[in-house]
Amino acid sequence: MAEALLLHEDPRSGNCYKIKLTAALLGFPLEAYQYDILKGETRTPEFLESINAHGRIPVLQIGERFLPESNAACWFLAEGSPLIPEDQFDRAQMLRWMFFEQYSHEPNIATLRFWCKFVGLNNLSEQQRDQMTAKRIAGQDALSTMNGHLEGRDWFVGSAATLADVVLFAYTQVAEEGGFDLSAYPAVQAWLKRVPTLPKYIAMQ
Amino acid sequence: MAEALLLHEDPRSGNCYKIKLTAALLGFPLEAYQYDILKGETRTPEFLESINAHGRIPVLQIGERFLPESNAACWFLAEGSPLIPEDQFDRAQMLRWMFFEQYSHEPNIATLRFWCKFVGLNNLSEQQRDQMTAKRIAGQDALSTMNGHLEGRDWFVGSAATLADVVLFAYTQVAEEGGFDLSAYPAVQAWLKRVPTLPKYIAMQ
Repeated sequence: MAEALLLHEDPRSGNCYKIKLTAALLGFPLEAYQYDILKGETRTPEFLESINAHGRIPVLQIGERFLPESNAACWFLAEGSPLIPEDQFDRAQMLRWMFFEQYSHEPNIATLRFWCKFVGLNNLSEQQRDQMTAKRIAGQDALSTMNGHLEGRDWFVGSAATLADVVLFAYTQVAEEGGFDLSAYPAVQAWLKRVPTLPKYIAMQ
Repeated sequence: MAEALLLHEDPRSGNCYKIKLTAALLGFPLEAYQYDILKGETRTPEFLESINAHGRIPVLQIGERFLPESNAACWFLAEGSPLIPEDQFDRAQMLRWMFFEQYSHEPNIATLRFWCKFVGLNNLSEQQRDQMTAKRIAGQDALSTMNGHLEGRDWFVGSAATLADVVLFAYTQVAEEGGFDLSAYPAVQAWLKRVPTLPKYIAMQ
């Protein structure tokens, strides 16, 4: 990577961890600048003006350019590496699991973890409380889909780890902090032990 | 495309339309097999066993292989075409908007459209009704982010249409069916008129 890489992040976020794990697996140095999302530090006029008008982290800064969306940042870092399959169909399958992660997994599993562990159940708004049951059911459905796919497979796509594994690992490994019981998903549990054996793996802080 | 392409779809779905629009822009013939999601036709044992264990459409069938997730299917079709930018950073920016579409746009704008137009407000469950306000606010936030980005730009990334435009177009053009007032987003409205001028464009049924 010719240009300096700076991650605008909150270290409690699995979406930020994905990018740090991708960079670590590839041996890329990555500086970090930390924000506290609970204090609204990504909604300040300065942040919206110069980092991300959508008010979210992570944002990967590449030299003077800014790239929001965690899975897009992982893709940028991993292009040309073995973390992206060379085969066209496998590459699309990897993206399939990355879109699944953002649509069916993160909004349920990561959000319930955030509410349970960081916001606190007593501090939730009525609107948030109203969404908990739907998110619980959808999160279990996502874990069940992953478990079925991983039966008889070591990795989500092909015969080696790809970005699909990296991005799904981030919040699955901490799903129990959101009240999900992983013992119902043995193939997921076996895969969760496999990811940390990758060379240069780093754990979430 | 050497192998036959078959789209497992419900024609009311913007996620299915994205794939048909991508194929049309690229001149690829695409057969379609239709399901009625309101009748549970994507949750039958046969569908779960042979098409998609996650019980969703669209699924793009390429010969004997199956690819779920609309944006992954668009990517598969468009690889090597001008709909995916050649520049590495622009390509990642395109994916950034595709992940934004699945995380911040579709779950709000498409879901409210589906509830308003196809399920009917009187038929919503209490859980669904409880989510409407949050989805309304988040959908408006997504449209506002798009509008700010499009001010002074013709296309989401670079100087020509990419998959970012295709996938965001699908549900934005019908956002008013979900009760969103697009007159608040003039740059989005101008862009909505630009997409149908693309050669080989097809409208949603």
